[in-house]
Amino acid sequence: MSTAPLDRWTLSRALTRMANASTAELAQAAPRERPAHAARRIGITGAPGAGKSTLVGHLALERLSKGRLGVLAVDPSSPKSGGAILGDRVRMDDLAGSAELYIRSLGSRRTCDGLADNLPEMLDIMDEFDFDEVVLETVGIGQAEYAVRAQVDTLVLVLLPESGDTVQAMKAGIMEMADIFVVNKSDLPGAQRMATDIQRIAAVTSQPEGAWRAPILLTSASQPASIRALSQAIDSHQAWRSADPQRSQHLRAQRARYRLKRLLEMRVAEAIAVQADDFFDAPLQQQLATVLTAVRTAHDL
Amino acid sequence: MSTAPLDRWTLSRALTRMANASTAELAQAAPRERPAHAARRIGITGAPGAGKSTLVGHLALERLSKGRLGVLAVDPSSPKSGGAILGDRVRMDDLAGSAELYIRSLGSRRTCDGLADNLPEMLDIMDEFDFDEVVLETVGIGQAEYAVRAQVDTLVLVLLPESGDTVQAMKAGIMEMADIFVVNKSDLPGAQRMATDIQRIAAVTSQPEGAWRAPILLTSASQPASIRALSQAIDSHQAWRSADPQRSQHLRAQRARYRLKRLLEMRVAEAIAVQADDFFDAPLQQQLATVLTAVRTAHDL
Repeated sequence: MSTAPLDRWTLSRALTRMANASTAELAQAAPRERPAHAARRIGITGAPGAGKSTLVGHLALERLSKGRLGVLAVDPSSPKSGGAILGDRVRMDDLAGSAELYIRSLGSRRTCDGLADNLPEMLDIMDEFDFDEVVLETVGIGQAEYAVRAQVDTLVLVLLPESGDTVQAMKAGIMEMADIFVVNKSDLPGAQRMATDIQRIAAVTSQPEGAWRAPILLTSASQPASIRALSQAIDSHQAWRSADPQRSQHLRAQRARYRLKRLLEMRVAEAIAVQADDFFDAPLQQQLATVLTAVRTAHDL
Repeated sequence: MSTAPLDRWTLSRALTRMANASTAELAQAAPRERPAHAARRIGITGAPGAGKSTLVGHLALERLSKGRLGVLAVDPSSPKSGGAILGDRVRMDDLAGSAELYIRSLGSRRTCDGLADNLPEMLDIMDEFDFDEVVLETVGIGQAEYAVRAQVDTLVLVLLPESGDTVQAMKAGIMEMADIFVVNKSDLPGAQRMATDIQRIAAVTSQPEGAWRAPILLTSASQPASIRALSQAIDSHQAWRSADPQRSQHLRAQRARYRLKRLLEMRVAEAIAVQADDFFDAPLQQQLATVLTAVRTAHDL
């Protein structure tokens, strides 16, 4: 655990600067080895209305004992400059006074995969500020899970009973990505049936020897024991991942893939944006060549 | 209007083939001049639950008299191979028998902006099959509106009373994009107040001389007159746009921008996907150079 007090003001400034960083600055902030003291990264994702914010609040309260805790909540509609604590996070009153807790809501105007702008680099900043753990809350909108998967060590998929979430998640291939399934608002009818459905789907999926078997948990904000069980499942998964370095190697490459792809997409978008309307009257081959040359030049390649 | 009967089987096959087209095939299907007989394109977008599907059904019934009508409904969770009529479109029984109506649900697995895969090329196919009008239904998830804006001639933004949709739309800069505002389910409390709110926001937005002033309509599936009013507003906007060729010129360039950007993004993603995990241990400059060279080679540049 960290001993120096958390400098909230400097952290907030650093995150804001990174959120607004240009592609040139991002290319400088190159992917590097994570420091020895790297925060555990826990992703909580699910459809809107699944009760993620409340769940994250309770989970943060439960896990604050484990050290310095950061909560980054991606709000797709939040303006990029905003860094306010989410308005509806009222239940987090208990937490707001803690010196070792930092909560930030992040906008996602430029990216379209449900992640915040420059999120990978912002997660690196959390490492620099000696966080022990970072909880990343994202809204699942189909593509978001693919992007968030590589950014976190443990991915918790939050489902709402009777919502058709299971079918949607299966269709989108998200079920295979989750490390932990949570059927939230478990006092709603259909919660137990949903858990059974997921169990049945998981049972028919063949997995190699030694693979992680994603547990299926029922949670409710009104049942503290269910939050503790979730917290323990996260610990178990982190322990499983740490037991074999190979388990994180592929994840690191996926993170690097995401960064490279995003950096090039931003450069391509910039190169296209500066072209005049009549540029697009040219043959497609010529358009492609011009844009690629612009990207090469921007990177001195 | 078209005289030859609509060949549904050939159309369905052509759309499926395009939905699954590779980047190489897309590069061949280069952006071109739209034929003289190009379908009017009407976009209907809004948050999930705003009642878009039902509204589109009623609107289609109203506009079927104007000629051959296609409805492309983008369902982010639909599997790519699916082409079924949406299950919940039960109210469209009246329409299903019409020889001049074609309805198709499109998946969007690869794109992350809420548009279907290869949508621009699929819209071109609708032109080839002599459609007079194509209604494109998309779910607004923040970024989707930017992408859909350029694809359609008239953009209708559907809002739900008391939903906070106005605030979300303002934040995301979507309000400026809409050609027509619709407060749907107008029998719900708060509908009139929402319309007044939008009116007030629109009033303070300064606009150049001759600019289109987006009307604000209240609609309800149970009030046929409100659907007719929406249909007439669409006609008015199409007439306004046709009155001056310059009004569509910028839109055409935006469409070409979107295609070029997407084609390059797909190529970049392909070039990154084939790299082994240890490729990402190399310096970033080298990674960038390798990927750009792969994209150039793929396009013979």
